[in-house]
Amino acid sequence: MSLAWDKMLSETLKVIALAGGVGGARLADGLARVLPPENLTIVVNTGDDLEFLGLKICPDLDTVCYTLAGIANPVTGWGRIDETWRFLESLVVLGGPAWFNLGDRDLATHIERTRRLREGQSLSQVTRAFCLAWGVEPAVLPMSDDPIPTWVHTDEGVLPFQEYFVHRQCRPHVTGFHFEGAEQSHPASGILPAIQAADLVIVCPSNPWVSIDPILAVPELYPACAVKPVIAVSPIIAGQAVKGPAAKMYAELGIEPSALAVAQHYRSSKSGGLLSGFVLDSVDASQSTRMVELGMQTLVTDTLMKSGEDRGRLAREILTFGLQVSGKEASP
Amino acid sequence: MSLAWDKMLSETLKVIALAGGVGGARLADGLARVLPPENLTIVVNTGDDLEFLGLKICPDLDTVCYTLAGIANPVTGWGRIDETWRFLESLVVLGGPAWFNLGDRDLATHIERTRRLREGQSLSQVTRAFCLAWGVEPAVLPMSDDPIPTWVHTDEGVLPFQEYFVHRQCRPHVTGFHFEGAEQSHPASGILPAIQAADLVIVCPSNPWVSIDPILAVPELYPACAVKPVIAVSPIIAGQAVKGPAAKMYAELGIEPSALAVAQHYRSSKSGGLLSGFVLDSVDASQSTRMVELGMQTLVTDTLMKSGEDRGRLAREILTFGLQVSGKEASP
Repeated sequence: MSLAWDKMLSETLKVIALAGGVGGARLADGLARVLPPENLTIVVNTGDDLEFLGLKICPDLDTVCYTLAGIANPVTGWGRIDETWRFLESLVVLGGPAWFNLGDRDLATHIERTRRLREGQSLSQVTRAFCLAWGVEPAVLPMSDDPIPTWVHTDEGVLPFQEYFVHRQCRPHVTGFHFEGAEQSHPASGILPAIQAADLVIVCPSNPWVSIDPILAVPELYPACAVKPVIAVSPIIAGQAVKGPAAKMYAELGIEPSALAVAQHYRSSKSGGLLSGFVLDSVDASQSTRMVELGMQTLVTDTLMKSGEDRGRLAREILTFGLQVSGKEASP
Repeated sequence: MSLAWDKMLSETLKVIALAGGVGGARLADGLARVLPPENLTIVVNTGDDLEFLGLKICPDLDTVCYTLAGIANPVTGWGRIDETWRFLESLVVLGGPAWFNLGDRDLATHIERTRRLREGQSLSQVTRAFCLAWGVEPAVLPMSDDPIPTWVHTDEGVLPFQEYFVHRQCRPHVTGFHFEGAEQSHPASGILPAIQAADLVIVCPSNPWVSIDPILAVPELYPACAVKPVIAVSPIIAGQAVKGPAAKMYAELGIEPSALAVAQHYRSSKSGGLLSGFVLDSVDASQSTRMVELGMQTLVTDTLMKSGEDRGRLAREILTFGLQVSGKEASP
């Protein structure tokens, strides 16, 4: 694609990205490489937030911010690059709870966020200030300033999300989810105007059950997105999640994990038909036919993001597809 | 001195040490090198405690514990050896308040202490658990489980202690002190029985105004100590404090800083005559005469503790002097 095409793309499309953890953060970073910052708003899941050691921790929000800031750990996807673990080592000596990994640099985020929240700032205000400090230019917004903790229903009981995800390492079998307080929650300030101004909503390749569904559970968010062209990117490739328990969750809920299952998830959930377009990996190309039969447009491409270049390339392809889906397609 | 003498000493004397910051911690460590742990109880100032970044920080208590555990920073006296500063660096990037130095290892102490206090444990319970984890054998007790914050009256207003000490680097001129809530406070559990069982109270070479006076301001502590032989060690050598603002405080309060001034401080404060004996440095030997005239026994020796051996040697000399002062002197 030409530079002229890139320029046209970025001047034409205002984009909302819905994102959860590592996969979502990587595509959000790709979009940030292509779009001018004022044309990109990233809405992040906060259902996985936890209070740990008296600190407010927002794992998905931090993963997105660290990734966009270029300070994320490239190996794990979560946490910070060049991290050290002196705090955690010393905490273990004292017998403190150490099942949630808190690096020395990462800890500053949680301590300063907790301090500011106690001072009365909202989570979105704190996030804005941190993004400014880290040089993150696109708007990154928590889905809500209200707490909406995700609970995971399992054969071992109903567990707070991080208890299931980190402490129990996703071992319990999942039977369902609920997003506590979602009904009474409101989107963080700035989200609804950004959606209203947007040409395209991109659902990043994040876990549909525990990264995207919590966002869509915020009452005003779903209908605002539903009237826009929506493209989702499959987090499932060849029946496997690139990262995390998405495939395991599908299987435990009696659904064969596949790109098609993800597409149907977004098509069927809520009041129907969120998706206009779907992006799936080349290895799953055969599933495209059924999606088209279901009325979706599809983009079949290499969706695995190994490098920064991969992220930018995929973002560019998705945005081009988005022009087509949103009826804004123009010849370069 | 012979091993037999050491054995006799340690089997004879039960000792309470009152301690504040670095100097106090070093003599407490010396005593711990000489006495069996069951014969030593260290009562530590908590008037300098602060809440910072939502964390309960007890600088004097930590200095004593770290020193006894052999994990104190030997250069600064406070904080931990082999410390790293990734947390603080990252906090500065976020614009968080960073005037109080919190190292990565040190942070574990404050976070885990804060967590346990919020769970309902008392400061003395938490301190006992931490000492166990760090291998500190003598009993280390905060002077009280009640908060008794020290306020420093200065020409720039009344300041919380650490605001004066760390943030303003002791620059404001001191006009007085008060220990908020002292009147209603109680000694931490275990202190009074330990004093009652003790043969000797040692006032470590800590700042009289802001390390020792706060301890003696706990109502039941002073009378319990006053009926015991009490030896104080001068933190002032040749008119200077080895560390900290003690000499500056004396001067600003209109008293020439000297070992004699310290001795008179303990003799005159409260209901009179706390001291039975006083330990002063050889360079101040000439001041001994006046102390003897005031009815104190004196030990003139090298009181500067540069090495661990210095600490043990000074402790042994003080304990020998203590035998004499307490009337327990026996021939080796």
